[in-house]
Amino acid sequence: MEPRSTRVAIGLDLGGTTMRAAVVSERGQIICHLKRPTRAEEGASLVMQRMLDLIRAIITDSPFQLHEIEGIGIGSAGQIDPRSGTVLSATDNLAGWGGMPLAARVQETFGLLVRVDNDANAATWGEKRFGAGQGVEHLICITIGTGIGGGLIVDGQLYHGAKGVAGEIGHLTVKLDGLPCNCGSFGCLEAYAAGPAIVARAQDAVRAGAKTALIQMTDNRPEAITVPLIAQAAAAGDPLALQVLQETGRYIGAGLAGLVNVLNPERIVIGGGVAQAGDCLLKPIERTIRARAMPVAVAGLQVVPARLGQEAGVIGAAALLF
Amino acid sequence: MEPRSTRVAIGLDLGGTTMRAAVVSERGQIICHLKRPTRAEEGASLVMQRMLDLIRAIITDSPFQLHEIEGIGIGSAGQIDPRSGTVLSATDNLAGWGGMPLAARVQETFGLLVRVDNDANAATWGEKRFGAGQGVEHLICITIGTGIGGGLIVDGQLYHGAKGVAGEIGHLTVKLDGLPCNCGSFGCLEAYAAGPAIVARAQDAVRAGAKTALIQMTDNRPEAITVPLIAQAAAAGDPLALQVLQETGRYIGAGLAGLVNVLNPERIVIGGGVAQAGDCLLKPIERTIRARAMPVAVAGLQVVPARLGQEAGVIGAAALLF
Repeated sequence: MEPRSTRVAIGLDLGGTTMRAAVVSERGQIICHLKRPTRAEEGASLVMQRMLDLIRAIITDSPFQLHEIEGIGIGSAGQIDPRSGTVLSATDNLAGWGGMPLAARVQETFGLLVRVDNDANAATWGEKRFGAGQGVEHLICITIGTGIGGGLIVDGQLYHGAKGVAGEIGHLTVKLDGLPCNCGSFGCLEAYAAGPAIVARAQDAVRAGAKTALIQMTDNRPEAITVPLIAQAAAAGDPLALQVLQETGRYIGAGLAGLVNVLNPERIVIGGGVAQAGDCLLKPIERTIRARAMPVAVAGLQVVPARLGQEAGVIGAAALLF
Repeated sequence: MEPRSTRVAIGLDLGGTTMRAAVVSERGQIICHLKRPTRAEEGASLVMQRMLDLIRAIITDSPFQLHEIEGIGIGSAGQIDPRSGTVLSATDNLAGWGGMPLAARVQETFGLLVRVDNDANAATWGEKRFGAGQGVEHLICITIGTGIGGGLIVDGQLYHGAKGVAGEIGHLTVKLDGLPCNCGSFGCLEAYAAGPAIVARAQDAVRAGAKTALIQMTDNRPEAITVPLIAQAAAAGDPLALQVLQETGRYIGAGLAGLVNVLNPERIVIGGGVAQAGDCLLKPIERTIRARAMPVAVAGLQVVPARLGQEAGVIGAAALLF
């Protein structure tokens, strides 16, 4: 049989809430796409079952036969050893996932080549190959959502470090004796600038009597404040919402400035749900990096938004095969 | 003529106060060694002249002819572009050194292969090849002295970043709205944990009435307190001196913990004049890293003192040729 002209791979993005699968061409185009709830609370073995079902479903949905597919790339939440394809540890939102021999299980089920990496690394690789990271050899990608993750491109390749768990940008120390962080430490960037911290900052201000459109937008229920609402209020010029995002940008910018001094990247790509707040957040981040990092390291540095959005994960996971 | 069995290179370590040169074997042994004051205040062109003289002198002193020497490696203070061998910028202690085409000037004078890097990178490469960094592929080397510098080994090689200026570990943010730093930013590690900050912490305590052996050791002149005196007092059990070094270790450990989360190194090598304080400083650094960094990233991480001392610079500079 003649080989098709386009090489394709399956990309799978496994998060604590949603799992997504796509068949992706070697040019980074999504040919077909499926998503399902992860239902992590049902336990790791059911999550694995659901993941294998999702892979079967995307193969059935696609115009390709199994033997026409290059392989399966998986970006998984948790800390991953990409060499063995196993999960080293996972946080509460994928309880029981630690120790899962992810690559081996998928490989024995489908008989295809399987590559596994951390979800933030997969998204970074997606942006590097097909998104906002194209054409550079030294790149920091930061993903700001419920947590803060990241990935590093060094000499054009994903950087994994000694055990494969490099890239945890959210756990840079920005305030030595600061707020407790989910990781068990104190004063990490994530404790100040991930979604829950942003929402808490706005709620505290509202409860302290600040005037803001957020009060009306939530029918005076501070507990209903979300990052998208803050972003919407900021875009409409609400001073409190703007200030909350500026303060968030200062934290992220200060953490990244230190990293710019240590890693001297060519470009920083900023993505994740929170980054969809747009310039109200991205400009303060960039301004802070440029004000704080060393002049030689920031001259020529580009700070850009991610381009692949929620698709970065599946595209990057598939691209682990290319 | 028969080639000698041992390859040798000249290593030159150019600091703001002292310049050192050595002929170094490919096994990292110093065959002969010279040092002279830099006298940076006399201006860059006289510093360059003095450096060329020092290279001539070490060649004359050595048992080797010019053509038997592999080349000249230079580790220079300031920010260096290792590809072109030029100085990108230099701080006040080497004023006028910025823009100096270091490799070209030395190459045209001696006709030998010349490699140039930042002094902290050269010291890192020395430790990696012949000191405390041997045998690992992912290494962070931190040098604590009047400033805090560092170097990164990634996949067994010095990591330079986009423009060659990576490794500025002293300019990680550890306190967002903290003390002003020499680099122009605020709250950098260097502002809290380099020599002058350590001395200032002890002086402040003495002036505030703290009881400490340092008072007697300096004839009640707080301005005479130095890091070696603090280290000596700490080694003898002086509570204030121990507390000053512990606090310093907390800052360094917190900065390094963030970097461990991002880079996942196998080993951290701690050197520089301040590190000669020994376990009173190194233990708090290690304890803080292990308490704050993510468990998967610190499991198996080694934290060790540098081994080459003040020779790391010349040995590493020469080893840029090997």
